[in-house]
Amino acid sequence: MRLGVLTSGGDCPGLNAVIRSVVHRAITDHADEVVGVEDGFLGLIENRTRTLTLDDVHGILTRGGTILGSARVARDRMREAVSRAKELADEVGIDALVAIGGEGTLTAARMFSDAGLPVVAVPKTIDNDIDATDVTFGHDTAVHVATEAIDRLKTTAESHQRVMVVELMGRHTGWIALNAGMAGGAHGILIPERPFDIETVCCMIEERFARGKKFAIVAVAEGARPAPGTMKFEHGGTDLYGHQTFGGIGNRLSAEIERWIGKESRPVILGHTQRGGSPTAQDRVLATRFGWHAVEAAHEGAFGHMTALRSGRIVPVPIADAVARLKTVPESRWIEAEAVL
Amino acid sequence: MRLGVLTSGGDCPGLNAVIRSVVHRAITDHADEVVGVEDGFLGLIENRTRTLTLDDVHGILTRGGTILGSARVARDRMREAVSRAKELADEVGIDALVAIGGEGTLTAARMFSDAGLPVVAVPKTIDNDIDATDVTFGHDTAVHVATEAIDRLKTTAESHQRVMVVELMGRHTGWIALNAGMAGGAHGILIPERPFDIETVCCMIEERFARGKKFAIVAVAEGARPAPGTMKFEHGGTDLYGHQTFGGIGNRLSAEIERWIGKESRPVILGHTQRGGSPTAQDRVLATRFGWHAVEAAHEGAFGHMTALRSGRIVPVPIADAVARLKTVPESRWIEAEAVL
Amino acid sequence: MRLGVLTSGGDCPGLNAVIRSVVHRAITDHADEVVGVEDGFLGLIENRTRTLTLDDVHGILTRGGTILGSARVARDRMREAVSRAKELADEVGIDALVAIGGEGTLTAARMFSDAGLPVVAVPKTIDNDIDATDVTFGHDTAVHVATEAIDRLKTTAESHQRVMVVELMGRHTGWIALNAGMAGGAHGILIPERPFDIETVCCMIEERFARGKKFAIVAVAEGARPAPGTMKFEHGGTDLYGHQTFGGIGNRLSAEIERWIGKESRPVILGHTQRGGSPTAQDRVLATRFGWHAVEAAHEGAFGHMTALRSGRIVPVPIADAVARLKTVPESRWIEAEAVL
Amino acid sequence: MRLGVLTSGGDCPGLNAVIRSVVHRAITDHADEVVGVEDGFLGLIENRTRTLTLDDVHGILTRGGTILGSARVARDRMREAVSRAKELADEVGIDALVAIGGEGTLTAARMFSDAGLPVVAVPKTIDNDIDATDVTFGHDTAVHVATEAIDRLKTTAESHQRVMVVELMGRHTGWIALNAGMAGGAHGILIPERPFDIETVCCMIEERFARGKKFAIVAVAEGARPAPGTMKFEHGGTDLYGHQTFGGIGNRLSAEIERWIGKESRPVILGHTQRGGSPTAQDRVLATRFGWHAVEAAHEGAFGHMTALRSGRIVPVPIADAVARLKTVPESRWIEAEAVL
Repeated sequence: MRLGVLTSGGDCPGLNAVIRSVVHRAITDHADEVVGVEDGFLGLIENRTRTLTLDDVHGILTRGGTILGSARVARDRMREAVSRAKELADEVGIDALVAIGGEGTLTAARMFSDAGLPVVAVPKTIDNDIDATDVTFGHDTAVHVATEAIDRLKTTAESHQRVMVVELMGRHTGWIALNAGMAGGAHGILIPERPFDIETVCCMIEERFARGKKFAIVAVAEGARPAPGTMKFEHGGTDLYGHQTFGGIGNRLSAEIERWIGKESRPVILGHTQRGGSPTAQDRVLATRFGWHAVEAAHEGAFGHMTALRSGRIVPVPIADAVARLKTVPESRWIEAEAVL
Repeated sequence: MRLGVLTSGGDCPGLNAVIRSVVHRAITDHADEVVGVEDGFLGLIENRTRTLTLDDVHGILTRGGTILGSARVARDRMREAVSRAKELADEVGIDALVAIGGEGTLTAARMFSDAGLPVVAVPKTIDNDIDATDVTFGHDTAVHVATEAIDRLKTTAESHQRVMVVELMGRHTGWIALNAGMAGGAHGILIPERPFDIETVCCMIEERFARGKKFAIVAVAEGARPAPGTMKFEHGGTDLYGHQTFGGIGNRLSAEIERWIGKESRPVILGHTQRGGSPTAQDRVLATRFGWHAVEAAHEGAFGHMTALRSGRIVPVPIADAVARLKTVPESRWIEAEAVL
Repeated sequence: MRLGVLTSGGDCPGLNAVIRSVVHRAITDHADEVVGVEDGFLGLIENRTRTLTLDDVHGILTRGGTILGSARVARDRMREAVSRAKELADEVGIDALVAIGGEGTLTAARMFSDAGLPVVAVPKTIDNDIDATDVTFGHDTAVHVATEAIDRLKTTAESHQRVMVVELMGRHTGWIALNAGMAGGAHGILIPERPFDIETVCCMIEERFARGKKFAIVAVAEGARPAPGTMKFEHGGTDLYGHQTFGGIGNRLSAEIERWIGKESRPVILGHTQRGGSPTAQDRVLATRFGWHAVEAAHEGAFGHMTALRSGRIVPVPIADAVARLKTVPESRWIEAEAVL
Repeated sequence: MRLGVLTSGGDCPGLNAVIRSVVHRAITDHADEVVGVEDGFLGLIENRTRTLTLDDVHGILTRGGTILGSARVARDRMREAVSRAKELADEVGIDALVAIGGEGTLTAARMFSDAGLPVVAVPKTIDNDIDATDVTFGHDTAVHVATEAIDRLKTTAESHQRVMVVELMGRHTGWIALNAGMAGGAHGILIPERPFDIETVCCMIEERFARGKKFAIVAVAEGARPAPGTMKFEHGGTDLYGHQTFGGIGNRLSAEIERWIGKESRPVILGHTQRGGSPTAQDRVLATRFGWHAVEAAHEGAFGHMTALRSGRIVPVPIADAVARLKTVPESRWIEAEAVL
């Protein structure tokens, strides 16, 4: 079998581990040929591929990023590509394609699959927002990095009687903020799923100081938003909520808290450190297992499916199930977290 | 409600996180009183307890070990204690007991529960050998530490064209060796579930060197054993297989490989570094969630149950189910690992 | 002898290690009494002190922050305090004071010393800007944290063909950016000592991409400034150069690069993670040695001196020598760094 | 200029950083040609070399080990090689040789230099036993790894009321044990420079337990030895003091302590984890600076010299000065450490 593999979407620790695993399983156990597609679906459209050997994947297990690259595709080109999916497969010369990516990639993979391209998907997301799998690789590393940062911030916050606001990734879901906040022992956790009231946040902090505590840590997802009309002050430039501007929620919230409670507050924006670098052991293992099962799925003809973790086992699930809805933080996880805030 | 809490058995990162969570949930949300029992069941028998307040658990989330201590109890005393379990609860003054521990603790907890002591259990094990839960806290930290060590050993092995034999914890099950071996990219993984043939191991290494590779890493669980009669040479003192002697499997295997293939081989025995120190983010979160649910189980009267993780949710399961059998590495996990060795 | 000890100025990993060492050396070896002064010079003025025992410093070696707290003093109060330094010592009941702090603290310590208060100083600074000592504790930890972040950012930058701008601490000197930039293999290092030309920076990046490299990392000290008139675009709000605003140099530079070269550029602001958390081994050792020598200096009456590291040895030097000038990055260090950019 | 570079002796984090720096400085700034010699002096004798380009050293800054390999040379071959050093240089085609290595390498480098080969040396040692330089790269990483292990062991030792004996590298000098012991807060530090009395060690531990402390950590250098006749019990096989046997000092000491004081004692042998893996930021910077200065020394004709760190500056010193004597732990460092044991 000639097996294509591509990585698409944002960077995520563990992508290389999947690629390595696909290559090992396919070549060593199935005597397949493996073709790496460069820069995601763009490379598929432009027929930019290269053969992948065991040597090519030597040493990449522990490395962040993706040796295949990743890029965005304009919508028009993607639509066109989907409509001629089978020809595409012939041009590139593949019998089956392993597409590794997040929600957007899964949606694209599904369209390709519907159009007749034999696609198997491997879900990746640091945000943990993909439904139908207990978790995917990348998230554990992001939480690990964020937790280390919170651990460090605690002592400096305490020594200086400060509030520290840590802005973490998560535009639509709050999993990183929830898990890193719980792991780091944050005193406030703000997530997109629950619009926050700034007064409640500030009162919580004031109460802590009133009880003799000398500091507070607030973990805030970049997508967390105040309930309308609750921010007292104006902050930042024109593009208030955008990611690239200087006025992200971390900066704005920190300034707001400082003015409100009259104590020093400092923002920390961890940014892309959360999605780069060597994956945690857990993410390496999960990514390696996913790679193995993606090859199996291709050989079994389970196209249109993706690998999913369910109670410790890897099973194939229809991609359609995974993209049907975003996996948000449920009430049950929230009330567990609230008890230790 | 007056809630007792004890930790029993070997050290495990995350014990303090459970204690902290129990105290927070019980005191803040239920207005319970929490009584810490010292040194596990020994403290229960000897009525050595102390009240736990929110202040007592301040700052312990990130700390390894257990603030309550842990100790072994002679069998006779345990049997006697079980038979008068209810009086014991009265003496200590508790309405329900949260027992945090591994397989031995769960078995004891079950006996106490059968004898009428209202017990709720929280499973802990770095070995991951407890059935009925997807995983418990402690294991991820152990794998993390072991993987970091393998990462470091690889470069030194490569520079010197050496074999490195890393002995990891796991007397009865090979989960740590399996997961850390996969995460670290080991070339051989030896686990108790699969007696190994020394010749196969040495041939694998010789083949690697023949293919131009300059080193090999073997991850071996302390409980891994050669198939009878396959070790060529004599090693060590009288207590060949015991843990405390100088001739653990890591040392013996390394010596055997060196003599067999005629290349330098070095053992590394990570020992208790795998079960000490600050828990990983994942273990902190899981431990915290378990604590929350243990309190709920006590309030709901779900005695004789333990908290278990199932596909991301925490559910109560009968302790009897968990201790019925040891969770060993299944064939399905083994064949996934074999592909990347 | 009754020995006072205080920590003053910004947080710095290793402060607790000095306190612990002072207490051990003073109590165990000299049978001194040790008095901890709370919140730096403020506690001295307000006579807020507490006895420190061996138990009080148990377990603090590895902890960031300071158990004594630190606070700012208004200038008027400080001046007054200096003028009645001797009475102050009598009130607080100390025969000698160990003042641990940065440049401001050393200046204050010198004034107190000149006014007759028997002061010995221990220099601390994450910025490495104190002259007269090879290095002080805190800097190694800051560089360690910053380097870990750059390591992580590299893979994500490479996968996405991005520029990453990492803003590091250092308002007046560029030591952290220089050392972390070298250790992380940054492609541009911008420090306060050398106003940068934005065109040169962008050309360097464009050349890298032209040579087929897929990413660039720029380490910029928060105090680095463009040569006047070289920034092409307008950024941020009113308080362009201030630390608390949303338009710090990292944000501004990243936006500038993105517009100039037409490739995605992302800022990462590590902030206070660089000055919090557990000190590195090196910082713990140096802090411990400084504590030992501070006690010796007090017993030898070497008042007005501070501990300094010189070629591996700890020696007392006049505080005046240390505060005479800021230690900036010399030309010799810069040209070493340039070769590997 | 045609510049040869080789790495020799045991593995040491930072070797690759030196190679990378030599290549950058030589090629970019001097337009030199750089020739990598494989497997140390063996490759020199056997004329196994390859040209090193900027691409060859891409990405190696952060990697442990050495891309050039390292191997031992039989004495006879080395003597012969020294006698025809100049021809050797002609055969290999080099105008100057940068030899990176430890004490043995420096001695060899000196002999080659005396015989007319234009050699410049760069000292490396994780043991910190090279005189004439404040410190060399590799040591900080070893201490970092050892300290992390001690940090982890503390909590498990405390929970179980155990003694933990950590065997660290250092056959002839105790620097790693001293620095990691101080950084980790060990209660006993045993080094080759000071033969220990087992009774004193055990009494110290017993006193700790008597004072209510629940554990003890002993850091022991692999070369530490009991004063003759002080070990009470017999341990291990025939090769009592050798490194490869099962009866290293860590194992023996742990067994001795357990029998003596009647409390559980556990050995941990970190082994080669101390000399592998990614170098610390400090080691990367120092290694990079050394590489720069080695190229300068070659261009200035400072043959027979090695790079040395003195109070923050890199200076050339005669190799003869460095190999004249082993740098052992001086009394002054020892008494600093004793105060906090």
